[in-house]
Amino acid sequence: MTAFPVPTMPAPPVGVVGLGQLGGSLAAALLAAGRPVAGWDVDPAARDAATARGVQITTELSGIVVLAVPLPAMATALDELTVDPAATVTDLGSVKRPVLHALGDALGGRFVGGHPMCGTERSGHDAVDPGLFSGARWALCLEPDTELPRWLRVAEVALDVGAEVVPVTAAEHDDAVAAISHVPHLLAAALAATAGQAGPLALALSAGSFRDGTRVIRSDPAFVTAMVEGNAGATAGALARVQEQLARPWPDLVADGHAVVTRQEGRRTVRVPLDRAALLALGRAGGAVTRRLAAFVEGWVPAQS
Amino acid sequence: MTAFPVPTMPAPPVGVVGLGQLGGSLAAALLAAGRPVAGWDVDPAARDAATARGVQITTELSGIVVLAVPLPAMATALDELTVDPAATVTDLGSVKRPVLHALGDALGGRFVGGHPMCGTERSGHDAVDPGLFSGARWALCLEPDTELPRWLRVAEVALDVGAEVVPVTAAEHDDAVAAISHVPHLLAAALAATAGQAGPLALALSAGSFRDGTRVIRSDPAFVTAMVEGNAGATAGALARVQEQLARPWPDLVADGHAVVTRQEGRRTVRVPLDRAALLALGRAGGAVTRRLAAFVEGWVPAQS
Repeated sequence: MTAFPVPTMPAPPVGVVGLGQLGGSLAAALLAAGRPVAGWDVDPAARDAATARGVQITTELSGIVVLAVPLPAMATALDELTVDPAATVTDLGSVKRPVLHALGDALGGRFVGGHPMCGTERSGHDAVDPGLFSGARWALCLEPDTELPRWLRVAEVALDVGAEVVPVTAAEHDDAVAAISHVPHLLAAALAATAGQAGPLALALSAGSFRDGTRVIRSDPAFVTAMVEGNAGATAGALARVQEQLARPWPDLVADGHAVVTRQEGRRTVRVPLDRAALLALGRAGGAVTRRLAAFVEGWVPAQS
Repeated sequence: MTAFPVPTMPAPPVGVVGLGQLGGSLAAALLAAGRPVAGWDVDPAARDAATARGVQITTELSGIVVLAVPLPAMATALDELTVDPAATVTDLGSVKRPVLHALGDALGGRFVGGHPMCGTERSGHDAVDPGLFSGARWALCLEPDTELPRWLRVAEVALDVGAEVVPVTAAEHDDAVAAISHVPHLLAAALAATAGQAGPLALALSAGSFRDGTRVIRSDPAFVTAMVEGNAGATAGALARVQEQLARPWPDLVADGHAVVTRQEGRRTVRVPLDRAALLALGRAGGAVTRRLAAFVEGWVPAQS
């Protein structure tokens, strides 16, 4: 199969709204990749830090506008800014259905929801790391009305900073992250709160399994609460499934959990046409896009090794 | 207060039964601290690896005999060995009531149950690390019939490899570790099993919170099962308390869990007389012994900073 080169249209400019850990890291990573970045943050300290890294601070944004603000601020993040009516708008929020509802209704096919699966328990512009996205999966929403050329342009932003793009719908994303991110935050909180009630001896004896099992609840509680409440239905469902697991005989539960995390999987390289159904099928198979070519994308799917 | 030097009685020899990750690491750490170590393992490969590190392989053990074998093997670990009838016997098992029952009945005050709160998801003699105990808490059981001079000799072994000694009863230990170690293993298993059922997309999107929240279930399932089943009552109780926490409103749960893991505590240095009640009070306060002197031990307790 011949690899057609991507047409040499210039990459659109990128404007990042919110220059904390995620937005600031994205701006730094894009600058490192040679793409100019404009941006804005309501916090003057974050603007100064971004300016020092080479971000052009402005309230006039065009091209691809990335909303990297907390979930509760998403709906109003553009209110004070001047955005080119032709711009593609994307976001980095950890829940996708509410953001799609808040922005997709107004922006229609110009909105492409996204969620890079990275970040740490730290936050703010002090936690900026241009390597944050390297090797990370970046969920990117393909709704029925998403304009595919815009989706591909946002995917190129993710690929440019070293991420792999997972095509999903907002609903698929929210159901998946309930199980692998939102419930882990609640389990960590419950574990920490229980140990806190058990008293000083228990905390004094706590070691690796407690430290690992509670790390994510070191995150800003407002961030965690907005995340789990913003995905309440799917999170409650996944939590109920975890509790069903906890009711099983422990030897069976331990064996099954161990098997999931120690499973060895290989990868098979695939080419996927620029077609919504084919791209979503790649995501559902557990695969990701690693490269954009002219008439297709290249990626991989898991394969029994 | 004047610090009396410890009487210059020579430290007793140490014999380690089981030369896998924990036993092999203890032997290596003691050798690095200048204490000669004898030992035994049923696996010739583990014996060869220990010999190469300077352990004298023998079936005749005296002084302090450390049982570093899996919980199911604890009761019979000495059956094929010749042990000095005056020896002090200790163990490194992750549950203390069943080991006390299996060995304390026969050995009486000569048995001192112990549990260093370290180790990783790896196991076997390939995972030996002489730095494993450095800075770790080491729970050491003071039952009503434990002979205090023997307890102190075992404590010196722990202190010699860089650990801090937490005086506890077997019952206190098992209740505490149910909350901070055994339940985390079950939560990790339930989280992994639930994600496994959610399908390839969920696992493809899993990142830091899932990886941290499931790390401990990478451990040998036989080891984990023996641990939770060996402490079934306390673990079931702690799991029920975690589930009560999970039924609370999420914002409250998130705030409380966050507060526990981010609490800042200082330390206050204390001197504790060589007295069972005083030592156990140190452990209940969340403190630990860091040094043995002639008429007391030195240690610390948490203090509001």
